[in-house]
Amino acid sequence: MSSYDYDLFVIGGGSGGVRAARVAASLGKRVAIAEEYRFGGTCVIRGCVPKKLFVYASQFHEAFEDAKGYGWTIGETRFDWPSLIAAKDKEIERLEGIYQTNVGKAGAEIFADRAVLEGPHEIRLVAEDRRVTADKILIATGGRPNRHPAMPGAEHCITSEEAFHLKELPKRIAVLGGGYIAVEFANIFHGLGVDTTLVYRGKEILQGFDDDLRHELHQAMDKKGLRVHCCDTFERVDMRSDGTLAATCKSGEIMVVDQVMLAIGRAANTENLGCEAAGVELDGRGAIKVDDYSRTSAENIYAIGDVTHRVQLTPVAIHEAMCLIDTIYRDRPTKPDYDTIATAVFSQPEIGAVGLTECLAAEIFDEIEVYRAAFRPMKNTLSGREGRMLMKLVVDAKSRRVLGAHVLGHDAGELAQILAVTVKAGLTKDAFDATMAVHPTAAEELVTMYTPSYRVKGGERV
Amino acid sequence: MSSYDYDLFVIGGGSGGVRAARVAASLGKRVAIAEEYRFGGTCVIRGCVPKKLFVYASQFHEAFEDAKGYGWTIGETRFDWPSLIAAKDKEIERLEGIYQTNVGKAGAEIFADRAVLEGPHEIRLVAEDRRVTADKILIATGGRPNRHPAMPGAEHCITSEEAFHLKELPKRIAVLGGGYIAVEFANIFHGLGVDTTLVYRGKEILQGFDDDLRHELHQAMDKKGLRVHCCDTFERVDMRSDGTLAATCKSGEIMVVDQVMLAIGRAANTENLGCEAAGVELDGRGAIKVDDYSRTSAENIYAIGDVTHRVQLTPVAIHEAMCLIDTIYRDRPTKPDYDTIATAVFSQPEIGAVGLTECLAAEIFDEIEVYRAAFRPMKNTLSGREGRMLMKLVVDAKSRRVLGAHVLGHDAGELAQILAVTVKAGLTKDAFDATMAVHPTAAEELVTMYTPSYRVKGGERV
Repeated sequence: MSSYDYDLFVIGGGSGGVRAARVAASLGKRVAIAEEYRFGGTCVIRGCVPKKLFVYASQFHEAFEDAKGYGWTIGETRFDWPSLIAAKDKEIERLEGIYQTNVGKAGAEIFADRAVLEGPHEIRLVAEDRRVTADKILIATGGRPNRHPAMPGAEHCITSEEAFHLKELPKRIAVLGGGYIAVEFANIFHGLGVDTTLVYRGKEILQGFDDDLRHELHQAMDKKGLRVHCCDTFERVDMRSDGTLAATCKSGEIMVVDQVMLAIGRAANTENLGCEAAGVELDGRGAIKVDDYSRTSAENIYAIGDVTHRVQLTPVAIHEAMCLIDTIYRDRPTKPDYDTIATAVFSQPEIGAVGLTECLAAEIFDEIEVYRAAFRPMKNTLSGREGRMLMKLVVDAKSRRVLGAHVLGHDAGELAQILAVTVKAGLTKDAFDATMAVHPTAAEELVTMYTPSYRVKGGERV
Repeated sequence: MSSYDYDLFVIGGGSGGVRAARVAASLGKRVAIAEEYRFGGTCVIRGCVPKKLFVYASQFHEAFEDAKGYGWTIGETRFDWPSLIAAKDKEIERLEGIYQTNVGKAGAEIFADRAVLEGPHEIRLVAEDRRVTADKILIATGGRPNRHPAMPGAEHCITSEEAFHLKELPKRIAVLGGGYIAVEFANIFHGLGVDTTLVYRGKEILQGFDDDLRHELHQAMDKKGLRVHCCDTFERVDMRSDGTLAATCKSGEIMVVDQVMLAIGRAANTENLGCEAAGVELDGRGAIKVDDYSRTSAENIYAIGDVTHRVQLTPVAIHEAMCLIDTIYRDRPTKPDYDTIATAVFSQPEIGAVGLTECLAAEIFDEIEVYRAAFRPMKNTLSGREGRMLMKLVVDAKSRRVLGAHVLGHDAGELAQILAVTVKAGLTKDAFDATMAVHPTAAEELVTMYTPSYRVKGGERV
């Protein structure tokens, strides 16, 4: 019998922590999990899930417009922000309950408390003011949006966290950032009728995604009246006497808006966590350093999820949790597999992508073939809606392997999920060519691009 | 130089005929193509395309309802059938123009005329009353709905062909049939507000699809108020003095409706085509008999598409056309590949499927694993809409190969298209397991079903 109170103490009730606690408990380990706020973590409480619900809400106005081309007449439509917030909160509460129930059912002890490290095996429960001990400790405290304290007036700004709880919908908003959170929220606000401007210091939004899709999405946002200002940033934000905000850009422009939202990256939740006392080292950005098996610099302490600054995605945190359990409790040391992770940006139009971008593939491979289709989806014919779908397959000319698949348009995230299976499995373009089309779908374009749109050899288009 | 007027004469301007004519002409062959009605065939003129446009039109009412749960208030909505028909006709006309232009541009001579065979190399253009000759002839005349002449009152009924041109939307309709056309149209009419009943003589709709999905769709249709009567059929249809129709069921029930639509299979267009004169044999159902390379019993005459009663799908006809061109003009005899063809049913909810059903797989393989997820899609949470998504992977326990993938719900057709690549390529369940989820999507269920829901061994669930 171990001399510790617990076999495993998990700090943080997000996707990664809950999964680890649940599975460890189901293996018969004595497990505790502490969560100071709400179970579910970023994903459930203030990330993926409420964000997607907002995305749904913001898409309906397009349905109202599109319906007209299909013979429908619609009376006046009106959107009520507080109703959406209330409905969303109710759903999040339901999900939170499920998370908590499941971890409890599995046999883990739950502390609704902040837990901090006091030594390699010692944890203090802050509110209870009690010390407990554990053989192994898992840090899964996640991250939070950067609040940009260096910028004068940052205190007037919101982040995604507050965006989920705004008392009223702003009439005008400026979103600072060019990553997926900035882009998704800009599209959400625009879709809900907010006059929206996205300001991003980089040359193009969504760094890391395929350039083609980045440009196409940028143009689509411009066309629908969502202003995108690249190569610019905010130098200060001032509150004016009427309560509105004046955001002064580096370019000199002053934007007067009701809200400024910062989406400029996320920081690991490691402050006052007692890492030093436990011998857990942080990297230069405050994230916990881990080895290939999620072990920190302290032998018995592990960390998974956003607090480690590896790949900040819910399924990755869950995967890390499962690998960790295999490693520490099933005698099967397992490294998380970060190769070929598909991602979606729930912008409007949506992006789904997996594998190498054209640009990256061209750097790595002698010669690549690019298969590209840009077309008006059938639904947009009668509706008269502008906007094309864009689909790309990036193929190694020599091996014929599909290196990357990139989709912009309806259901891109759903398509990316299955495309991920094909790219991860290393399928060749021939496997796509051999597949019969399903007609009429948008995805059939992906199996009917028989000749390359162009080739890139030695970095040059040929 | 050939002594014939043409190298290839194509009868029928549908998907298969146009593709063959276009590619043959682009290879420098002297090609003619005759179409007596409109270019585009069933798919473009009175099938896939207008059907999908109707599906879009019929889905909006759900968006109007769903929006309420997301904070939207919508004024009165009204649907105008003639507006939809006019918009659809305009789009079909545009597509028809593109088809005709493309075949002309490729260098094929176009006859807007009915063409019939007068001998193995002789074709009569009926309206022109002129005989032309060709080295090779391709019959691609397609098919049409059966009109059930044996049933008294069949003349009062419509088929899908008339459904695309009804002057007014019926208030009540009865659809006879249980295949995908019957099911799709029943859902379309219901979605547009028509009181709809589907009557089918079989035990369950959509024979050939996975039983699970058939039942789930049946239930979903029932729940939304679309009545499905299986194990019944119409014995007669009488027109009443007020112009409404009384359909007498075998069960004795009499349904009074405004329209009766028959969707009870399709027949090949081979009447008065001169098949006998040319030595082209038909099968017992009137379809043209062909060998593995689409050659008829006449050495120089070929047939592709619906007129051959192989697999009646647009992409298959196109595939047959491409294989035929390879065979006859590129010295690469190529058999069409009918293995693992994905299909979609654009019902509401939608079905997408590829590969073996559970039932069929259980017959063929010693032991199969079934991975099954039934869940409420996230969009349905705030909207309060009932209806689950259903996803199934059927796996050979021994080889781990995924034998079939079946989806019911949003975007099922799109998902089936990419799933088809995985199943066609023979990927194993391990390839799915190794793929990271994209969150939050519905499709992520397909890569997160780590343990079988059940196994079937020797035909029995274990």
